[in-house]
Amino acid sequence: MGWRAVEPHGSPCARMKPRQGFLCLFLCLCAAESVNGGNVLVWHTEGSHWINLKPILDSLVDQGHGVTVLFQNATLFINPKDYSRYKHHLFNVSITHEEQQEFFDEFLQFSLHDMDYLSYVEIYLKLYKLMDKDTGLVVRMCDGLLKSPSLMEELRKSKFDVLLADPIFACSELVAEILDIPLVYSLRFSIANVMERLCGQLPAPPSFVPAAIVKMTDNMSFTERLLNLLFYMSQDALAVLTWRRYDAYFSEILGKPTSFCEQMGKADLWLIRTFWDFEYPHPFLPNFKFVGGIHCKPAKPLPKDMEEFAQSSGDDGIVAFTLGSMIKNLTKEKSNMIASALGQIPQKVFWRHSGDKPDTLAPNTRIYDWIPQNDLLGHPKMKAFITHGGTNGIYEAIYHGVPMVGIPMFADQPDNMMHLKSKGAAVIMDYNTMQTKDLVEALNAVIRTPSYKKNALRLSKIHHDRPIKPLEEAVFWIEFLMRNKGAKHLRVQAHDLTWYQYHCLDVFAFLLAILGVVLFIFVKICKFSIRLCCSAFNSKHKKE
Amino acid sequence: MGWRAVEPHGSPCARMKPRQGFLCLFLCLCAAESVNGGNVLVWHTEGSHWINLKPILDSLVDQGHGVTVLFQNATLFINPKDYSRYKHHLFNVSITHEEQQEFFDEFLQFSLHDMDYLSYVEIYLKLYKLMDKDTGLVVRMCDGLLKSPSLMEELRKSKFDVLLADPIFACSELVAEILDIPLVYSLRFSIANVMERLCGQLPAPPSFVPAAIVKMTDNMSFTERLLNLLFYMSQDALAVLTWRRYDAYFSEILGKPTSFCEQMGKADLWLIRTFWDFEYPHPFLPNFKFVGGIHCKPAKPLPKDMEEFAQSSGDDGIVAFTLGSMIKNLTKEKSNMIASALGQIPQKVFWRHSGDKPDTLAPNTRIYDWIPQNDLLGHPKMKAFITHGGTNGIYEAIYHGVPMVGIPMFADQPDNMMHLKSKGAAVIMDYNTMQTKDLVEALNAVIRTPSYKKNALRLSKIHHDRPIKPLEEAVFWIEFLMRNKGAKHLRVQAHDLTWYQYHCLDVFAFLLAILGVVLFIFVKICKFSIRLCCSAFNSKHKKE
Repeated sequence: MGWRAVEPHGSPCARMKPRQGFLCLFLCLCAAESVNGGNVLVWHTEGSHWINLKPILDSLVDQGHGVTVLFQNATLFINPKDYSRYKHHLFNVSITHEEQQEFFDEFLQFSLHDMDYLSYVEIYLKLYKLMDKDTGLVVRMCDGLLKSPSLMEELRKSKFDVLLADPIFACSELVAEILDIPLVYSLRFSIANVMERLCGQLPAPPSFVPAAIVKMTDNMSFTERLLNLLFYMSQDALAVLTWRRYDAYFSEILGKPTSFCEQMGKADLWLIRTFWDFEYPHPFLPNFKFVGGIHCKPAKPLPKDMEEFAQSSGDDGIVAFTLGSMIKNLTKEKSNMIASALGQIPQKVFWRHSGDKPDTLAPNTRIYDWIPQNDLLGHPKMKAFITHGGTNGIYEAIYHGVPMVGIPMFADQPDNMMHLKSKGAAVIMDYNTMQTKDLVEALNAVIRTPSYKKNALRLSKIHHDRPIKPLEEAVFWIEFLMRNKGAKHLRVQAHDLTWYQYHCLDVFAFLLAILGVVLFIFVKICKFSIRLCCSAFNSKHKKE
Repeated sequence: MGWRAVEPHGSPCARMKPRQGFLCLFLCLCAAESVNGGNVLVWHTEGSHWINLKPILDSLVDQGHGVTVLFQNATLFINPKDYSRYKHHLFNVSITHEEQQEFFDEFLQFSLHDMDYLSYVEIYLKLYKLMDKDTGLVVRMCDGLLKSPSLMEELRKSKFDVLLADPIFACSELVAEILDIPLVYSLRFSIANVMERLCGQLPAPPSFVPAAIVKMTDNMSFTERLLNLLFYMSQDALAVLTWRRYDAYFSEILGKPTSFCEQMGKADLWLIRTFWDFEYPHPFLPNFKFVGGIHCKPAKPLPKDMEEFAQSSGDDGIVAFTLGSMIKNLTKEKSNMIASALGQIPQKVFWRHSGDKPDTLAPNTRIYDWIPQNDLLGHPKMKAFITHGGTNGIYEAIYHGVPMVGIPMFADQPDNMMHLKSKGAAVIMDYNTMQTKDLVEALNAVIRTPSYKKNALRLSKIHHDRPIKPLEEAVFWIEFLMRNKGAKHLRVQAHDLTWYQYHCLDVFAFLLAILGVVLFIFVKICKFSIRLCCSAFNSKHKKE
């Protein structure tokens, strides 16, 4: 395990020789203290989670704050050049890149294929196994930083003002507790909102708040409410089981009995990466801020060849198609089926596709390794977006008011698309079973039926019509924490209650006991009175 | 009953002769349509409720919107000159000013004196009687507008974009429903938050959300949680009972079975007149916006004589004292007791007092019919604010960071002061039992103990450190409703659930039934198996 401090491009540290590394680290950490404004520490994240953090960090840097990102050497999706604008510290972990990739592939296999043929019980057991494996990996990752007193001491010396983290990547809570600084989360969701509910005390009545990834709306039938409740309960049990490893680790590191959830509950603020354009309205707390669409921005002009291709579409317009950065290759059969469908619509199609060129590719479709997704979505000729339903992509579509055809695959994607379908802005396809005809029909429906565009524009209006832009709001609250050393006045007292106290079960039990005693005494008195009457009646009768 | 339309000062209507009244009304209502921006209708309010609406209306006028205020001729505290900046319509009601005053005096007598010697049951019954009387008066008041088809037709013709109302003054819901326009509430509180909870679907777990006016904090013992729960339950019962009259009236007016609560639940937005500087953190909903401190503003210079008096205090500073606009006279004994206490502190005291000059008045205390409260609270020499604890006054004190001595009397005042006491920014006195010595001690504590000032400044910092000023936020959301014809995307689906569906009681009952059947079958199978074993054993035994 080791520690490497890296300064932003062009800094004196970048020009130092390797042997000057330690001096560089010292200088860098000292420099962090002298930065204008605050001093922000950022816990490591991965993949699309990072995409949402980046605009916040850029904005913090623009505001004159020092930003230091922690990252580990087994990262799967992060390229060190992503950190070029910030100070960043690499900590070495005992996990290999291959181990991480293997776990990720296993998770993809489970989400994309296994779930189609496994029974509910098997899915549940497999999910437990996966989550348990994940906590094991995470704990080993945390060791890389937390079990290195020298590294922790360096962080302590840097006097950070706030720690920004995605709670999906555990242990930020320990760093914040040890450094005694406010903790602010940036979170899209946890399965069935276990983190938000159990640890953040977010109220979520199962009758109208569908659990995250359950693929139901807020308008539920009796059966759906039953399933929603059971899903909540089963996921709570799963969380309690898998978090036991974290509980032990957290207690060990802090040297006192504690739990993962207790430490999460100390977070000052939760910046949730959605908004009411996407969410079903639900109860929330003063320290939950909905800042969905942080990364969205106006479209820039397309590269020349793309613009020419777009203009060649005439009045028919264009369609953008991507399945995100995590799906690298489709099977040949699937690619051909999709290409064949795309060839049957009059629009020009921009397809982000990294596999072989499909045999059925039609002239109206062009394949790209990468597409400027936001610029395409904001193009005046844009008609529809074919998407896997990742939050970042759909938020760009909402921002620009583009209706969608969703081909969701795993994690929150199916649930995301259900949100948009229920709001009338999308059609959902089944990745495993869809045929050429289905995709053509879905595209024609979304492009030709005015209600889809109208609803997409309605969501876009809601997205834009708010008192403060999401990025500004996120930065405001991080700066608030630095100015005020936390935001304890926004944290509900429910954190100090047990679950039965929260639901007043002890009070109800007491009231029931009182009622029981009163009824018991009442019945006794009645019986006694009746017996008294009867004996008086009998003795009178006998006398007579 | 009648109808009078009044234009803002200096308008053509103001110069018309009385006989031209109807033409004037017509012109005014037509003019309302042609106003730049939106067309806002405002439901009548009274007293301090009006003080909080006024800045919003002024700001709406400044933004170029047309504002039309409805008011009735039996108003107690509103002076027609208060409406000079807006269009306003007087509707005549069959209630006399005296009837209103009599009811208000009865309410004051109950709050200030009766509650001290009555038992809980007597208080409850008296409260029911008062609330029932109130609904009777309100319904007669509503008749003045709603049972006049011509007046309603005039309103309809005016094509308002939104209706702004304080739900404490009922029937705005009917006007909004009939005119088919969005409804936005401005509310401080309802007793035990019955309106917010039962009609607005605001979640309020009794374990950590103390009911409004219950005088408890969010940190409750078992007994307090029990009392809080019982208070919620008793007030819910009271509301259901007293709202029956409204339910019948609402159904009659709309010509369909409905209820007061159902119509309240249709409100698009609830602008709550508090903020997290004052509130204990609690769950809320996306259509609840906390805009406390709307009326607060920087201090202006004092009148010359007041400034001289303030400056004469030297380093000791000054104290402001008011019991609000509703308490006109103190008893001679009480005034002397208070004056005597004020004479024992070194500060100079500005006392708003409209009764006779107390015999014990000391040279450091000056009596005024009216004081520029906000300008005094924002004065650099201000040390403490002696207040009855009305929300408007305490918000001005929070705005300027002034610690308080509270002498609360009725309505939300005792509860308001409890909030500030628990946050370490105030000391509470009992109006009925306090003695000279108590008031002197309280004043000295608040002025000399640094923690009171520190906490008051902390609340002030929270008050000011928010992404958008409360007045701007309130105006933003009213404009939002006009731009978007409502805000249904912020309204939780819980409105369409019954109370047992909301709490999933039907789902739990179903699960219990399943469990019961499974247990029953299990027991039967066990019994059958045991019997089978026993009979086999017995027959074998017999054979042997």
